[in-house]
Amino acid sequence: MSDTTGADRLVAAAAAHGVGLCLANPGTTEMGLVAALDRSDAMRSCLVLFEGVATGAADGYARLTGTPAMTLLHLGPGLAYGLPNMHNAHRARSPMLVVVGDHTTGHLRLDAPLTTDVEGLARPMSGWVGRTSSPGAVDLAVADAWGAATDRRDVATLVVPADHQTDTAVPLSADAIARYGSRRPRARPVPDGAVVDAVAARLAQPDSRPLFLLGADALDVSARVVVERLCNRTGGTAFTGTTMARIARGGDVPEFGRLPYFPEDAAAALVAATPLVLVGARPPVAFFGYAGRPGELAEGLECLTLATEDEASLVALEALDEALAHIRPRVARRPVAAPVVPEYSDGQSLDGWSVGAVVAETMPHDAIVSLEGSTVGHGFFTASAGGARHDVLTNTGGAIGQGLPVALGAALAAPRRRVVAVQSDGSAQYTLQTLWTMARESTDVTVVLVSNRRYGILETELKRLGHAPGHVAERMTSLTGPALDWQATARGYGVPAVRAGTVRELREALTRAHCEPGPTLVEAVVV
Amino acid sequence: MSDTTGADRLVAAAAAHGVGLCLANPGTTEMGLVAALDRSDAMRSCLVLFEGVATGAADGYARLTGTPAMTLLHLGPGLAYGLPNMHNAHRARSPMLVVVGDHTTGHLRLDAPLTTDVEGLARPMSGWVGRTSSPGAVDLAVADAWGAATDRRDVATLVVPADHQTDTAVPLSADAIARYGSRRPRARPVPDGAVVDAVAARLAQPDSRPLFLLGADALDVSARVVVERLCNRTGGTAFTGTTMARIARGGDVPEFGRLPYFPEDAAAALVAATPLVLVGARPPVAFFGYAGRPGELAEGLECLTLATEDEASLVALEALDEALAHIRPRVARRPVAAPVVPEYSDGQSLDGWSVGAVVAETMPHDAIVSLEGSTVGHGFFTASAGGARHDVLTNTGGAIGQGLPVALGAALAAPRRRVVAVQSDGSAQYTLQTLWTMARESTDVTVVLVSNRRYGILETELKRLGHAPGHVAERMTSLTGPALDWQATARGYGVPAVRAGTVRELREALTRAHCEPGPTLVEAVVV
Repeated sequence: MSDTTGADRLVAAAAAHGVGLCLANPGTTEMGLVAALDRSDAMRSCLVLFEGVATGAADGYARLTGTPAMTLLHLGPGLAYGLPNMHNAHRARSPMLVVVGDHTTGHLRLDAPLTTDVEGLARPMSGWVGRTSSPGAVDLAVADAWGAATDRRDVATLVVPADHQTDTAVPLSADAIARYGSRRPRARPVPDGAVVDAVAARLAQPDSRPLFLLGADALDVSARVVVERLCNRTGGTAFTGTTMARIARGGDVPEFGRLPYFPEDAAAALVAATPLVLVGARPPVAFFGYAGRPGELAEGLECLTLATEDEASLVALEALDEALAHIRPRVARRPVAAPVVPEYSDGQSLDGWSVGAVVAETMPHDAIVSLEGSTVGHGFFTASAGGARHDVLTNTGGAIGQGLPVALGAALAAPRRRVVAVQSDGSAQYTLQTLWTMARESTDVTVVLVSNRRYGILETELKRLGHAPGHVAERMTSLTGPALDWQATARGYGVPAVRAGTVRELREALTRAHCEPGPTLVEAVVV
Repeated sequence: MSDTTGADRLVAAAAAHGVGLCLANPGTTEMGLVAALDRSDAMRSCLVLFEGVATGAADGYARLTGTPAMTLLHLGPGLAYGLPNMHNAHRARSPMLVVVGDHTTGHLRLDAPLTTDVEGLARPMSGWVGRTSSPGAVDLAVADAWGAATDRRDVATLVVPADHQTDTAVPLSADAIARYGSRRPRARPVPDGAVVDAVAARLAQPDSRPLFLLGADALDVSARVVVERLCNRTGGTAFTGTTMARIARGGDVPEFGRLPYFPEDAAAALVAATPLVLVGARPPVAFFGYAGRPGELAEGLECLTLATEDEASLVALEALDEALAHIRPRVARRPVAAPVVPEYSDGQSLDGWSVGAVVAETMPHDAIVSLEGSTVGHGFFTASAGGARHDVLTNTGGAIGQGLPVALGAALAAPRRRVVAVQSDGSAQYTLQTLWTMARESTDVTVVLVSNRRYGILETELKRLGHAPGHVAERMTSLTGPALDWQATARGYGVPAVRAGTVRELREALTRAHCEPGPTLVEAVVV
């Protein structure tokens, strides 16, 4: 092991591409890579206690930096635990380099207990899947994976047999390091001029009252400024999608509504669109299908695509703005409606709305807010619209257990900013091991653990189904008997914790927590 | 919803087959099944906070009862979290009925955020995968899945779109219920008589000193009694595999050694076999491949298969015993060597050996011991050989996070027996949410949480690689900074907990815990 190994070459190649963070939950077949990380100072390594933490944190890191972190997972089962947050990252279009160890090449045919179809497991939740061919060629595989991750903005999974890690390989040459280091992700292609012209012609017609639906890079502030101008000129309105990988809000950033979650509400919000203009978005569909409800939310609407998810929205929007320069604005610059936040008395007990309002009121300037769970989302979005400048990261793929890991990854990516993880209790349980790595890495995260002690969304869904819950259904949607004690759970991971039951208690607890270095968990008990 | 639905028909069909337990972590697309479980009293439903708990508990239940429990998982991501323990169940040959909800049929083509390739994810870790075709035919799909699970002793995954759950279907007829209720799993086929004769001929030769390697149903007590007789007659010895789904031990049950874990030790243990006789086992292979170490442990040995994993070992063994009746026993009945358990002084601090010995000494008669983690396994196996009668369940597939869920499932299957979960701290973190369901269902489980605050096996593996750990490798194998506080973690889930640091403290804590109804966690701090 005094020689350079394939693992050394792999780490050097990833570092040359700019990968600076490895989120690891290694096992026996990844010891070659652990030894190489030990010998290198090119990459920061963070241990996590569960694979879903690694993949979710890589997603959060990518949302902040636009570049992939590496994860280190153990064979098929380790990969499987990481898949749900890979699914979320895939839907968020987050670049990610998932490295999975496998048995030594000669051992695979023996069907040892841990032998699994690693590629078969990875494929449904990866945009690219590959396997190294030899210790000396691991850098070529890393280059392919990195290229796929960044060009496609997707999850790339690279399987590395243990012998390709531990066998001798010549060190990566300075030439190769320079070549890999000079690679940049492929730029988004610019939409066809004819497409822009067609949209402009339609919007120039006097009957048009467009509704812009924004996603991907159309959520960038620069793009939204143009959208706001276009809305003023055309008398149109705009929505973001229901979920978003990352969106800057507060301050003087143009604020649009979110498309509602339930399909009947979303369809009602879209119905006046003449036409619906998609910018960085696909035609909207319902999260779930319901009997008698629309699945395709834009069904029957006139629908134009200005820029697809993969195209450069800003370029398209600026071209559209230019093409419409000749028409007189139909509305003056609309005043930004200040959000209507009800007054909450200090002694009031907490609900989703008041928790959202207090989080919005107390969050530091330039905070990053990771949101998971339905209880507080609406309250926070409403209250924070006119507040301090902040970024919001939401659950993009619907796989549960994404909020805490994404908060961890964001904190690792942006160590000078306070991260606020607004996290419902039910979904927190899937990746609660994140708390330990938050403590270990001293990340400045305030976890607002919203404890309503039930799966609120499932109670709603049972109602929508017309089912009046009996004993079993109540037990399947309740988190009591025993109640989860989040203060104890946090202490189990070395995270200081307090409980808040009123508006004042929550306000005081959050104000204090945001000033503390490292993580703090504030349990907001919602009745 | 006042009509009978496809979900009602599904629950009725599963119950008719004898499925009496549903381990559920449902989401929106499983509300039809939750409503049906609510309307039925044919099946017990237990909520779990994480899918790996559901699949692992179904495995434990199957190991005790031989019959499948049903799990209820939410789409691809929920299935993914459940896959590692499905892998373990697949390797344990545990029958299991994994029910996964999916989008309504018409919604699938829209590629909504949670749309995934559910079957593609299930396939690598299931023996059978299917999808219902209509609400009225769900019982046929259940019958196929149940048949595959029980006939093959494997994991059967059935995907049920939400509309097949909620749409109207006629109730299951009394005829169908009777027909499904009369089905029995296919019996294991009896090995060919010529195979038995060939083995007998070889063992009758004077130079033969057979080594019997036992797995599957050859681990049953009835089979082991015959193996002991055969060992006496032939001068042979026997080993069980390194891991086993379930084995009865203690009392007067014939005790054989376990095949060692590391390949060089295992190969050394097998080398004198003339021949190696496989009974309910495949030719042994190493858990992992190491450069310069054997992967096929029986390579170069004469190797005969008396019964495959799928055949009836007892029938084959009895036939072999009969065929060898004419040869004179080569050894008298060998005295059972009493295990050599060192004396531990009361005030001594704990290590893996003393924890194993104290667990063996204190466990109640007829306990079920679920073992996960390498720290205590050897110590417990050594000390318990001559102890009280008990069953041991081990990690069969190497996917981590199996011990606590299997203990839960065993406790649900055998409510009159005390379950002792001997669980290392690192692996406990993958499915620690099990503690909550143990508390909620008041299962009589004593969790011996062995806290050595490191991934001990990985330290060993780094050494085997010749790597002297530096700062990064130390941080990747250490569970300190902060240390995990297992008493706090247990309280977070409503499970009473105590800490033991000496032999006396552990003995007293376990003696008390075994008498308490419901779960108790005893943290054994190992230095």
